[in-house]
Amino acid sequence: MKILILNSGSSSIKFQLIEMPSEKVIGKGLIEKIGLPDASITVKNSEGHKEIIRLTIPDHTKGIEFLLSIITDEKLNILSSLDDLSAVGHRLVHGGSTFSKSVLINDDVMHGITSCIELAPLHNPANIKGVEAIEKAIGNIPQVAVFDTAFHHTIPEQRAVYALPISFFKKYGLRKYGFHGTSHQYVSTRAKELYGEDRTNKMITCHLGNGSSLAAIEDGKSIETSMGFSPTDGLMMGTRCGSIDPGVIPFIADHEDLDVKGISDLINKESGLYGVSGVSSDYRDVSIAASKGNEDADLALRMFHYDVKKYIGTYMATLGGVETIIFTGGIGENAINARKEILKGLEGLGIKLDPAKNEATMGEEAVISADDSPVRVAVIPTNEEVMIARDTYNLAK
Amino acid sequence: MKILILNSGSSSIKFQLIEMPSEKVIGKGLIEKIGLPDASITVKNSEGHKEIIRLTIPDHTKGIEFLLSIITDEKLNILSSLDDLSAVGHRLVHGGSTFSKSVLINDDVMHGITSCIELAPLHNPANIKGVEAIEKAIGNIPQVAVFDTAFHHTIPEQRAVYALPISFFKKYGLRKYGFHGTSHQYVSTRAKELYGEDRTNKMITCHLGNGSSLAAIEDGKSIETSMGFSPTDGLMMGTRCGSIDPGVIPFIADHEDLDVKGISDLINKESGLYGVSGVSSDYRDVSIAASKGNEDADLALRMFHYDVKKYIGTYMATLGGVETIIFTGGIGENAINARKEILKGLEGLGIKLDPAKNEATMGEEAVISADDSPVRVAVIPTNEEVMIARDTYNLAK
Repeated sequence: MKILILNSGSSSIKFQLIEMPSEKVIGKGLIEKIGLPDASITVKNSEGHKEIIRLTIPDHTKGIEFLLSIITDEKLNILSSLDDLSAVGHRLVHGGSTFSKSVLINDDVMHGITSCIELAPLHNPANIKGVEAIEKAIGNIPQVAVFDTAFHHTIPEQRAVYALPISFFKKYGLRKYGFHGTSHQYVSTRAKELYGEDRTNKMITCHLGNGSSLAAIEDGKSIETSMGFSPTDGLMMGTRCGSIDPGVIPFIADHEDLDVKGISDLINKESGLYGVSGVSSDYRDVSIAASKGNEDADLALRMFHYDVKKYIGTYMATLGGVETIIFTGGIGENAINARKEILKGLEGLGIKLDPAKNEATMGEEAVISADDSPVRVAVIPTNEEVMIARDTYNLAK
Repeated sequence: MKILILNSGSSSIKFQLIEMPSEKVIGKGLIEKIGLPDASITVKNSEGHKEIIRLTIPDHTKGIEFLLSIITDEKLNILSSLDDLSAVGHRLVHGGSTFSKSVLINDDVMHGITSCIELAPLHNPANIKGVEAIEKAIGNIPQVAVFDTAFHHTIPEQRAVYALPISFFKKYGLRKYGFHGTSHQYVSTRAKELYGEDRTNKMITCHLGNGSSLAAIEDGKSIETSMGFSPTDGLMMGTRCGSIDPGVIPFIADHEDLDVKGISDLINKESGLYGVSGVSSDYRDVSIAASKGNEDADLALRMFHYDVKKYIGTYMATLGGVETIIFTGGIGENAINARKEILKGLEGLGIKLDPAKNEATMGEEAVISADDSPVRVAVIPTNEEVMIARDTYNLAK
C-alpha cells in the first residue's frame, strides 16, 4: 500500500511516498516558493535519481497537481499511476483540544481543523489547503490528519494551564498544547525498539532544530513539553525567543512603540539565535561566526546550550529522574559541540557523555553516553514522515 | 549602634530598629495606607508592647516624621532621642547594572538610583521618597542603600540575557536582574552558619511568599534566579503569572483588546493564585477554598507546587546537583503541605522529606529531610532586615 505524506507550509509542501507496511521510502521531494517567481519542485526517487523543475506555481492546488503528475512520471519510476496511491497522510500543526489522535478526514474533521485556525493562524490554513488540493485532484482517496499537538494530549492540567485568569482557559482554550509531537513520539518509540525495557521508562527527548522543544516521556506518554500554547515558548530557537519574562513585553512595546503584530513579529521572527547573534538563525552559521571571534554569536550559542541544559533538569524533576536522553532534529543529530556543551557539568546527575562516541556521531542512531553512565544518552534521527505513514496506514488500510 | 531599617512601598513603610552588632531588634512596625483616610502606624517594642495609631498621613515625608516621633516616645522605650540613631538602612528594589553591592548614599548614588526608576517604576520612586524623607527629618545621618538585585549580580551573562534582539540588552539594559536578593543571601548565609561546610556548597533557596523566587547558590554566590528583568518572571505568585508562553501575550492583547497598561495589569495584578483560583492571592485562603471542594483553587495549588518542583530540577542542572534546599518566606516557612507536595516524587533525585519533621515545622529553623536523605532540606525563616542592618553597620560604623 503506497501512501503520500504531505507537510504543507505557507509557501512550501514537503512530501514523501512510503510503501506500507514495509516503510520503504519510494520517493520524496519539496515544492518551494509557492506564489513566487522562482518556485520549484524537487523530486528524488529511491534510486537517488533527482529532478529539479522550475515553473510557475501560483497556489497549493496547482502545486499538488504538478506533484501528482511528476510522481507518476515514467522516468522517475515512483508510481505507475495515481491508482497506485492508496491514501494521503497530512501533517497538521494544531489539533487544539479537539484531536487527541490521528483521524481519517471527513467533513466533521475539516470543520474541527478549521475551528483550530485561530490557535495556529500561520500553519493550519496551509495544512487545510493541502487537504483540499488533494480532494480536488484525486477525489475520494482516504486522507488522514496527523496532529503535531496530539502526542502531548496526555500532559496533565496543572502543567498545561497558564497562571492567568482561569476564564482565558475556559473561554479561549488558552493552555499548553505542545508541538513536534510526531517527532517526540517517533524517537521515544524508536528507543523502545532499540533498547527494549532497559531504561526506557523515563525519557527526555530533545528535538533541536530551527524550531526546538524538549519533552518528558513516561511509559511512552508525553507528560510535559517546552512549547506551549504557541510554538514560541520554551527554548530559544532560530528566530523565536522562547520563554522570556512576560514583564519584558509591555516594557518593549512601550519603548519600541510596538502593536500586537509588532510584538508577534519581534518574538517570532527577530529573536532567538538570529536576534542575539545578529548573524543568522542557523546554528551552523552562528557557530562559524563564534569561532571567528564574534562575541554576540558566542553568547547566543552559550545561551542556547544553557537553555537545553535547564530543561533537562526541569524534566528530571517532572519525571522524578531520567533513564534515557535522546537528541534529535538538525542540531540534535549533527551538532557534536551542542551535545557536549549541553551535558557538560551534569555528571553529578548521572549523565556522562563518552567524548569519542559523541565526536563520532552525526545523523545516525548511536548511544553516546559512557558505558558506566547511569543515564543513557542517545542520538536518534527523527522521522516524522514514517510516523504519519504508520497512522495513515492503520486508519486507511 | 542603633540602626533604623526602612522598607518603603508605594503606600506603606515597614521599619525595624536594630542594635548592632548584637543584631537585637529593639522595635519594629508598619505604616499603612499612606494617603488614604484610614492610614495607621503600628509600633512594637522589644518587650512586645504594641501601639496602633490611626491618623492622617498624606505622604511618605509625613509618615517618616510620625515614625521618628513615635520611636522616641518615652513610654515605648525604643530610643531616648534621635541622637541615639546612628544610621538608616533602606531596602532598594532595583539597582540595575549600576549597583552590585550596598552603598552609602550620596548625591551620585541618588542619581544612580533615580536612573533605575525606569526599570522598577512601581518600587524605586517609593524607596527614593523614604531616603528624602529621612534627610528632611534628621539631616545628615548616614543612609545606606541595600539592593534587592545586588546579590544576583554574579549571575553569568548567558543566563541573564534574553533571546531578543541584542540591541535591547545594549540599549535598555534589558536582562535578568533577579529580586529577593537580600532574602536569598540571608538564608544561604545562615545555612553556612548552621551547617558549616556540610553540604552548603550547592544550595537552592526557595523564597515562597506573596512574591516568590528561587535561587541557585554556589560557593555563597547567586548563579541563577527565577525572577528576571521584572519581578513578574519565574514562579506563579499571588497575583503575578510568572513565566508564560510569550506567544500568549499578543493573542490575549488581540482578543481582550488590551493596551500596554492592560497587559501589565493583567500579568501583575489579575493572575497567579488569584487569577486561577478566582478566590484570593493568599495561599492560605486558596488552600481553604480547595479543601472545601473548589476545583479552580485546587488547580491553582497544584500549579504552584509543580512550578516550584520544576525550578528545583532546573537549578539542579544549573548547579550540577544540589546539597541543601532551603524553604523561606511566608509559604516556605509555614505551608507544610506546600513543602510536601513540591518535594513529592523527587526521592529518585536524592531528596527525601521526613514527614514528621515537616509536619512539626512552622516558622522556625529546622532540618526537615530524612536522616538518610542525600540532599538536606531545611526551613530557615528569612530576615531581610538583619541583612540590611549588617550592610548598614559595616558601611556606616
